[in-house]
Amino acid sequence: MHTVIMAGGSGTRFWPFSRKYRPKQFLDITGHGPMIVETCDRLAPIARDEEIIIVLGDEHLGEAQKLFSDRKVRIVAEPVGRNTAPCIGLGAIYARHLGCERAIAFLPADHFISDRSGFLRALEYAGTISENGGIVTLGIVPTRPETGYGYIRRSRSYSDSSGYSVYEVSNFEEKPDYNKAIQYMQSGEHYWNAGIFVATADTILKEIRQYIPDLYKGLMIIEEGLKKGSFDEDLKRVYEGLRSVSFDYGIMEKTKTPLFVVPCDCGWSDVGSWESLYQLRSADYDKANNLSDGDTILIDSRNSFVSGTRGKFIACLGIDNLIVIDTDDALLVANMGRSQEIRKIVEHLTDKDKRELL
Amino acid sequence: MHTVIMAGGSGTRFWPFSRKYRPKQFLDITGHGPMIVETCDRLAPIARDEEIIIVLGDEHLGEAQKLFSDRKVRIVAEPVGRNTAPCIGLGAIYARHLGCERAIAFLPADHFISDRSGFLRALEYAGTISENGGIVTLGIVPTRPETGYGYIRRSRSYSDSSGYSVYEVSNFEEKPDYNKAIQYMQSGEHYWNAGIFVATADTILKEIRQYIPDLYKGLMIIEEGLKKGSFDEDLKRVYEGLRSVSFDYGIMEKTKTPLFVVPCDCGWSDVGSWESLYQLRSADYDKANNLSDGDTILIDSRNSFVSGTRGKFIACLGIDNLIVIDTDDALLVANMGRSQEIRKIVEHLTDKDKRELL
Repeated sequence: MHTVIMAGGSGTRFWPFSRKYRPKQFLDITGHGPMIVETCDRLAPIARDEEIIIVLGDEHLGEAQKLFSDRKVRIVAEPVGRNTAPCIGLGAIYARHLGCERAIAFLPADHFISDRSGFLRALEYAGTISENGGIVTLGIVPTRPETGYGYIRRSRSYSDSSGYSVYEVSNFEEKPDYNKAIQYMQSGEHYWNAGIFVATADTILKEIRQYIPDLYKGLMIIEEGLKKGSFDEDLKRVYEGLRSVSFDYGIMEKTKTPLFVVPCDCGWSDVGSWESLYQLRSADYDKANNLSDGDTILIDSRNSFVSGTRGKFIACLGIDNLIVIDTDDALLVANMGRSQEIRKIVEHLTDKDKRELL
Repeated sequence: MHTVIMAGGSGTRFWPFSRKYRPKQFLDITGHGPMIVETCDRLAPIARDEEIIIVLGDEHLGEAQKLFSDRKVRIVAEPVGRNTAPCIGLGAIYARHLGCERAIAFLPADHFISDRSGFLRALEYAGTISENGGIVTLGIVPTRPETGYGYIRRSRSYSDSSGYSVYEVSNFEEKPDYNKAIQYMQSGEHYWNAGIFVATADTILKEIRQYIPDLYKGLMIIEEGLKKGSFDEDLKRVYEGLRSVSFDYGIMEKTKTPLFVVPCDCGWSDVGSWESLYQLRSADYDKANNLSDGDTILIDSRNSFVSGTRGKFIACLGIDNLIVIDTDDALLVANMGRSQEIRKIVEHLTDKDKRELL
């Protein structure tokens, strides 16, 4: 199965550990190696390296080439970031160029999944469905009333003889408030939108032609370049001029093509914040629910995540519900519940032009 | 006026800033330079450098010699620490050796005093009293119901024509609980015991002879060494064998000699913890009562003390009532109210034999 791994993000949520040139997907956040490598490894039973296409930002090309120096994954560098629609279109024409006429899985490079086989089963099943046309999303079964994600609402069941569940999509829901999130969880009809979906290249490109025609034109020039051997130049020339638009907004919310959702309960996390990483690693907690990496001592402290670096001793006394992340040149001390707001610090650093810390 | 500055402490309360070989008295804690230098400078109007005797631990001799390389203060190094009674006795024989027959002020090296002239006035007045015999303590007028200090209770007023207040000491009180501390503050009869007192060398040595005779014998050998020019050797030989005993316990609580207290309201602080330093530096607070040194940003944070070092950026988000002290090799994150318990961390480091952090 061909897969397109979207690795274009330059997230700020793991500052000070993540930086502009070392975003989350290249970090060993969960203890299993760089997330982008883990994402590729996870796919091994269903996708050979040659079938994996990684789309990333030009500034991270060197890092990726180092990580995958002895592997046959395909790496495509966007000259500039233009949101997800161009990225997905680029992945689709690249897969088609590789001879792929069947389903392609599109997935982010920096998610965590604990139940690998459950995940791959859902992905393969979504592939089978999508080859009859339409776009098939994976819907993550909610485990808490999360207000930080968008939701997919299912409508009627799509009959199938395989015994798997698949539903037509009723609609996509914005990030809800807490009360709505509780309703969503109880309804049994709502799933987290993990940004993982499956479709053929032809379906993707047909949709782009209809709803974002200027992007389609650009992609056709690039595809022509792939055939003629002028891919790099054409990509550079065309990409700069593309409009920044997300696949969700540009296609998913407008399309008339059938949309399906395959429910998936695979221990998924987007690892979207220090708090979410802390929750994910609950197996590593001490008796007072502290998670600590490095040379630390925690006295009368609880519910905290303390991470140090080599050569620095960290002592905590009487703390509760804190994140303490120390790196060589920057230290973060934050209330656990505020870890979504770390961008405020990055904004401050941007304002002050402290590039060395970004 | 001769003064003996007691600088033997190797306090752990300012860990990780203070270390075994760099205790509080040698640190610039308050922003006015090393506390021991500040203490000497404060005395300038009443004591010439030649009249100042600093008694400190052998391990800090080099540091002190560096700090006072261009000054004429006398520095006496104890070969080993033996608590305050031997230290005070040593200061007394050294002052007597310098020809001092009048009052000597004994004071710690690491206290903060905001009203210098008020403090010196009280000290000089205590000197006058003490030259008629007895020991005269300075009693700090309480400004809060402090449970961390011992108290001096006054009895009747000692008549004097100068217009100054001086009282006989009724007794010394242990560190009180909170309710008692409130009573003490309201009584108007209780003062904080700051460990500052004035007496002649003859008074001190007479008391030592009576209550700690073995110490007296040792001191006489050392005094003989001062006269004969074998001071260093005699000091080394004798000191090791001395009993560790505090002046408060060994003399003050037992003596029949008259004890007086001169009230003093001079903005005194023993700067005994990170919290007490934080309180002392209230003039440097931001609008949310944060105190920060170094390259920091505090977002939605309050009542916190954040101190960094050169080359490290510290970002705080949503914190309250915290102490964050970063040094090159150790980081402390503590609840403000727990700063008295920092010794627990030092004990842990001692147990683990992490000498490089002590």
